[in-house]
Amino acid sequence: MTNWIRFRDAEGRIGFGTLDQHATRVLQYDGNIFDRPKPTNHSLPVKEVTLLAPCEPTKVIALWNNYYALSQKLDKAPPQHPLFLIKPPMSVIGPGADIRRPKSYQGKIAYEGELGIVIGKTCSNATPEEAEAAIFGYTCVNDVTAVELLQEDPNFAQWCRSKGFDTFSCLGPSIVTGFDWRRANVVTKVDGVERQNYPLDDMIFTPAQQVAMISADMTLVPGDVIMCGTSIGVGSIKDGASVDVSIDGIGTLTNRLAI
Amino acid sequence: MTNWIRFRDAEGRIGFGTLDQHATRVLQYDGNIFDRPKPTNHSLPVKEVTLLAPCEPTKVIALWNNYYALSQKLDKAPPQHPLFLIKPPMSVIGPGADIRRPKSYQGKIAYEGELGIVIGKTCSNATPEEAEAAIFGYTCVNDVTAVELLQEDPNFAQWCRSKGFDTFSCLGPSIVTGFDWRRANVVTKVDGVERQNYPLDDMIFTPAQQVAMISADMTLVPGDVIMCGTSIGVGSIKDGASVDVSIDGIGTLTNRLAI
Repeated sequence: MTNWIRFRDAEGRIGFGTLDQHATRVLQYDGNIFDRPKPTNHSLPVKEVTLLAPCEPTKVIALWNNYYALSQKLDKAPPQHPLFLIKPPMSVIGPGADIRRPKSYQGKIAYEGELGIVIGKTCSNATPEEAEAAIFGYTCVNDVTAVELLQEDPNFAQWCRSKGFDTFSCLGPSIVTGFDWRRANVVTKVDGVERQNYPLDDMIFTPAQQVAMISADMTLVPGDVIMCGTSIGVGSIKDGASVDVSIDGIGTLTNRLAI
Repeated sequence: MTNWIRFRDAEGRIGFGTLDQHATRVLQYDGNIFDRPKPTNHSLPVKEVTLLAPCEPTKVIALWNNYYALSQKLDKAPPQHPLFLIKPPMSVIGPGADIRRPKSYQGKIAYEGELGIVIGKTCSNATPEEAEAAIFGYTCVNDVTAVELLQEDPNFAQWCRSKGFDTFSCLGPSIVTGFDWRRANVVTKVDGVERQNYPLDDMIFTPAQQVAMISADMTLVPGDVIMCGTSIGVGSIKDGASVDVSIDGIGTLTNRLAI
């Protein structure tokens, strides 16, 4: 398992690299994180950098109804194909960055702690094996929603609008390669109080199945992110509250809803 | 009115420029089309270049139910806010490029002739005046849909999936600045037979209203495209058929559904 981070250093330069085993230093790399990145001789303390979202997706694909526990609770049949919406690139923020309440919206804002798949290879109509090989690694996700907009219009569920606001796709803190998702849980805390704790092996479509099936719908490219959907325990974030999404082996993604 | 095109020349180089009044030569520009592009001394015959999609959106925002005639036909109330889905960057193709049937899909594929707004300035929470100023120009759109996927799952309308396939966002042939959309019609022909002919002034949300309201939902950046929605006359494209979307003053966008 390797933890990859992207960061801005004290001089404002953007870089990327791997964390050492204590997660206190980052070994900087050059080139393209997805295509034979080259280690440099330079390392620096993690404390001295600002973490950024660990990748820059051209699109974020967010799944709905992908856990058996939640599909049972909602009394919805498991889908035959991943059900998804698309979130725009400008919705992405990294660890520690603030979620911003839309100026035009005073309603409830919800967190959803999730596993995120980071694509490492261009793929289209991938077989399950090709799909597995196209997964670079995994990250933590908070898929934020302006919930009162979703059903505001009786004729059209506004998934892209309610989830597409700037800062509503929180990603990080790192991308972990070689991660065994079947053994981990997603734990979401709001101001330190646990709200979600669900096993990833309750997923309806596994990550490789998601990549294979979605790659039949559109070409996936390096850096694209699939948010695997959430399970039970979704709730709202009060203005000023902090949300932690933790996955053992990946780390904790913390974002506050700015006052 | 100026017509901007993007193209690939005989040597494979990508460039952009303006058409002369006969639309037979392109005057090449350097730099950024949206930020003080510089004319060169170089011009070349349009015949000798391959036209590309006139811009490279980070996201394509496609409206549903934005014409009074279609909302009446569907018996749906006009919305209070633009209803939209997001199409990914890889769905974009230019004039003359083939629409490709997804390998995994044998059902009906529909055309929708539309006006496209091309954003020229970054904007967020824009006033109507700022929104108007953020519009670089307009282009023709064919917003293609794999219609049988849309309602395949009873619990989730699959807008992003059915409209997000590679090649399903046809744009072009040019971007026209200073275009008076209120005086024009969208005319869609399939293999030369007229199927749509509707006036743009039947729009529910005007282009400036769309940009202002959508910019409250997400930051729009130069090159982003808003597809203004379609009106009556949507239908299916047989494999091998050609679709022309024409708007007086912009030109004709032609794309064939590849056999």
